[in-house]
Amino acid sequence: MLLRMSTMFLRTLREDPVDAEVASHKLLVRAGYIRRAAPGIYSWLPLGLRVLRKVEEIVHEEMAASGAQEVHFPALLPREPYQATGRWTEYGPNIFRLKDRKGADYLLAPTHEEMFTLLVKDLFSSYKDLPVVLYQIQVKYRDEARPRAGLIRGREFVMKDAYSFDLDDAGLAASYQSQRDTYERIFRRLGLEYVIVSATSGAMGGSRSEEFLTPTPIGEDTFVRSAGGYAANVEAVTTVPPAALSWDDAPAAHVEDTPDTPTIETLVALANARFPRPDRAWTAADTLKNVVLSVARPTGERGLVVVGLPGDREVDLKRLEAALAPAEVEPAGEADFAKYPGLVKGYLGPAVLGPQGPHDAETGASAIPYLLDPRVVDGTRWITGANEPGRHVFDLVVGRDFAADGTIEGADVRAGDPAPDGSGPLELAHGIEIGHIFALGRKYADALGLTVLDENGKQRVVTMGSYGIGVSRVLAALAEANHDDAGLAWPARIAPADVHIVATGKDTAVYEAAEELAARLGTAGLDVLIDDRPKVSPGVKFADAELLGLPVIVVVGRGLAEGVIEVRDRRTGERSDVPVADAAANIAELVTRLRAS
Amino acid sequence: MLLRMSTMFLRTLREDPVDAEVASHKLLVRAGYIRRAAPGIYSWLPLGLRVLRKVEEIVHEEMAASGAQEVHFPALLPREPYQATGRWTEYGPNIFRLKDRKGADYLLAPTHEEMFTLLVKDLFSSYKDLPVVLYQIQVKYRDEARPRAGLIRGREFVMKDAYSFDLDDAGLAASYQSQRDTYERIFRRLGLEYVIVSATSGAMGGSRSEEFLTPTPIGEDTFVRSAGGYAANVEAVTTVPPAALSWDDAPAAHVEDTPDTPTIETLVALANARFPRPDRAWTAADTLKNVVLSVARPTGERGLVVVGLPGDREVDLKRLEAALAPAEVEPAGEADFAKYPGLVKGYLGPAVLGPQGPHDAETGASAIPYLLDPRVVDGTRWITGANEPGRHVFDLVVGRDFAADGTIEGADVRAGDPAPDGSGPLELAHGIEIGHIFALGRKYADALGLTVLDENGKQRVVTMGSYGIGVSRVLAALAEANHDDAGLAWPARIAPADVHIVATGKDTAVYEAAEELAARLGTAGLDVLIDDRPKVSPGVKFADAELLGLPVIVVVGRGLAEGVIEVRDRRTGERSDVPVADAAANIAELVTRLRAS
Repeated sequence: MLLRMSTMFLRTLREDPVDAEVASHKLLVRAGYIRRAAPGIYSWLPLGLRVLRKVEEIVHEEMAASGAQEVHFPALLPREPYQATGRWTEYGPNIFRLKDRKGADYLLAPTHEEMFTLLVKDLFSSYKDLPVVLYQIQVKYRDEARPRAGLIRGREFVMKDAYSFDLDDAGLAASYQSQRDTYERIFRRLGLEYVIVSATSGAMGGSRSEEFLTPTPIGEDTFVRSAGGYAANVEAVTTVPPAALSWDDAPAAHVEDTPDTPTIETLVALANARFPRPDRAWTAADTLKNVVLSVARPTGERGLVVVGLPGDREVDLKRLEAALAPAEVEPAGEADFAKYPGLVKGYLGPAVLGPQGPHDAETGASAIPYLLDPRVVDGTRWITGANEPGRHVFDLVVGRDFAADGTIEGADVRAGDPAPDGSGPLELAHGIEIGHIFALGRKYADALGLTVLDENGKQRVVTMGSYGIGVSRVLAALAEANHDDAGLAWPARIAPADVHIVATGKDTAVYEAAEELAARLGTAGLDVLIDDRPKVSPGVKFADAELLGLPVIVVVGRGLAEGVIEVRDRRTGERSDVPVADAAANIAELVTRLRAS
Repeated sequence: MLLRMSTMFLRTLREDPVDAEVASHKLLVRAGYIRRAAPGIYSWLPLGLRVLRKVEEIVHEEMAASGAQEVHFPALLPREPYQATGRWTEYGPNIFRLKDRKGADYLLAPTHEEMFTLLVKDLFSSYKDLPVVLYQIQVKYRDEARPRAGLIRGREFVMKDAYSFDLDDAGLAASYQSQRDTYERIFRRLGLEYVIVSATSGAMGGSRSEEFLTPTPIGEDTFVRSAGGYAANVEAVTTVPPAALSWDDAPAAHVEDTPDTPTIETLVALANARFPRPDRAWTAADTLKNVVLSVARPTGERGLVVVGLPGDREVDLKRLEAALAPAEVEPAGEADFAKYPGLVKGYLGPAVLGPQGPHDAETGASAIPYLLDPRVVDGTRWITGANEPGRHVFDLVVGRDFAADGTIEGADVRAGDPAPDGSGPLELAHGIEIGHIFALGRKYADALGLTVLDENGKQRVVTMGSYGIGVSRVLAALAEANHDDAGLAWPARIAPADVHIVATGKDTAVYEAAEELAARLGTAGLDVLIDDRPKVSPGVKFADAELLGLPVIVVVGRGLAEGVIEVRDRRTGERSDVPVADAAANIAELVTRLRAS
């Protein structure tokens, strides 16, 4: 394949696009790989499409090697299957919905569990048909509230989604492990660093799930790992609760005047000044902070929930949302407080919350559900709000003086926190989610009636797994991991072409030599991009070559008079002058080496 | 590639699906190539996907050979560009529209003229950048009123759409011709019979357009051709008008009582009985029929139009709609007549229509536009309605006694009608539209401001062409053209695999021999499907092999004892027994021959 700069549908930009914040987004646009069509929706230009195809090809090869069979589903789907599993509602505003000319409800599929389940139900009926793993590479849609970073969080994107179908849990475990291994092979072949972390299942459901993250400071996923090998998405980290304490020796709770202490800092300062502890100073960790949150269910219903946590911790809204999925959570506003005059902002305490507070007349449940951080165990003593302006209660003991409706993982995770498996303190890092695998279990098969006859002639509900790779996001992650100030620097296996020949100057002999070299490289099976533009300066051509990021840059120019051309490794910057006669062989050998590395 | 019936995600059906009428639809479903997901929306199973990829590959190769460059656009697009060209409205209910979470309008693109125009505008600015031809193979959406025949008229479908950009008309003509030639090469390689016919441009706009039709009785497009080489879609046929006549010798018009003659037949019978012509009998061709139609514009506005045509012709609604595009047309109903009490059903005449009828007070235009068939020329004499029940007017002369607002191509075309180019009488045939090419001109570039600087430094509006192939429809057309009562019979170049090995019986030696042959064919580069199911009867296996339609069927069974296997050509039915030792070479040679034929 020979590509020519003189005729290629490509224009590079010197300026970053105004809406781009991360390097991959800036460079993919500047180098003419993609263009924005709408927020979170991109068009692929010829070079971008070539990289996308190479990524897809690696995914196809490894999926086939895993025994998965390829199918392809529509993106436009009827409401009914998603209604049956509850996801039509659970996805809330995150899916695109529409009506056809007859008024029937449709959606643009965010993922295809329902359709795969129904197709297997349509075709298969016996345990002998299982296991089977099916997959597709297909365009997906999610109406993200905040599309960002170009292809990294888009609203229309390319995804590989696979689904396994097994008779029993052991089968699912084997299918899950096989796809997990396949993912490792895929990311290794792509040359993309990855970490596998425990994750929550979100709207997907299921018993076990892991994310593949590629570590990068620009990633919006935070994950933790310990030296001992624990790794998890922050949403999936569980808190190690301390042992419960006896309250036999605890003093009785007492309310004190604490004027002008609406914050933890002011409260701790006042407590140390007026009510000093004999053994040590009060700290924020001695206070119980009660945070009022507004919870929106996918159905549109809204309600309050109060989370009680030690005053030295902050609520992490993403962790809280993962715990309350599929609901969305935001801090309560003035309107919420106005509706519940019993809630005294800044001085809120357990006495009006959860079991201690008002109850729903019909259900008997707490009108304001109260959930505690797992660290707030029975017997612990707290300074907390007394539900009057300027007053706090001291020595309030959990279990003795108040109870809650349960616990919740809603506090932030910090570097140094203990790993839940005892493998040591956690460190925090950022990453981009490039893959996510789920042991779904029987949620979808149950909802849609996917059963098979087992060996004894009995109907058994099939157990499933689902396995996704964000293909277009992987491309962006590769661009993020492979660039420098001058531009992109693709790994050889996924570069849009192997060699970028830059012909410089006005000498006809230079262009002829460049063309001859391109032809010889083409014969050798290499994909070549030749910059054959006659009236473009060498400086512009070099800048474009660095920006486009092909692995080998070959300069045919002044050296030709001495019988040499220059061969550059785009990633290392290494350069060497090679005799013209040896050039094709030398370059082909370099490309082979780069592809293997 | 080795596919195994024992594990493949495939189930064949003995019964036709209830919603299928045409053979390709029935067989593609029964053979497990596709499955319906919603009306006009299909999922691709592994075998169907393999055929689709082969069709796509031929299209890609020929597009690349034509110099076209591949890009890829989103399917989900914002309203604005389609608003700018008017197509947001013109497409009426035929496109899927939706709103995102912020309330912004989007559509699922039916075709991408606007986006390609904007992308070229974004990247290119000089005449030196032109010509350029861009294309994609992409999923398209149309909310068809009547999806039918499986993949032939779907609501989500795969399309190859290409767009050419030129500085001037001569450039467009060359690009158009180049794409036309490319289409011929594509359809020849696919082995799909095609006819190129003149066509109308519909909502697309533009000066010239041609359709590629594959002739088949099940096609919903009717086209005409003459022995002299004229060919056109029925919508594009123009009528050859007779010469105008002098009315110097014509008698004055006279109204006659014609009781109970609301139809042409009753009117002709009565005229011959009571008002006989001296020279010959009256025929329906002597009457002027005035047909009242209701016209709906894409904006939702409705109005009437009356078409006057010889009584021996019928209105062809598809031709009329093509002439009135983008409006939709249906026969006027009782409600329409009720709104215009001046219209006497069955006895309607020109005296109350068009220029003779009421006028719009503001615009001065005819309140009821009156359009004549081109055969109704000045000087012709007609029997037509007198606008009173039971009365007709005789010897009413066009030009002398009444006028119209214009002419329209709304009458049906019949076998024997003269070709407009004088190349002889027309014959009618049916076909499936598999491609459509348009010389668009400057409509889109004008609307979206696509200009380039010409050699003199002046801005010039670019001229465009657009070129579509219905890729998934082509697959269905190929199935339609290549089947028999037993099933599909794919041409070798697009078959999902080359060889279908059927192992019969329970003898282990048979299965070993079949596996060995499969391995040898695989080594020879052939794609093999092996029916290795141990407990399935030979009859079922043979029926499945015929149904799936791979070009070569190989039977490894009883003959093995005598050292032979049977090789069948699926299309011709030819069979031969081949010694086991020669089998692989023999089969490979047969596949090579079939691919070349």
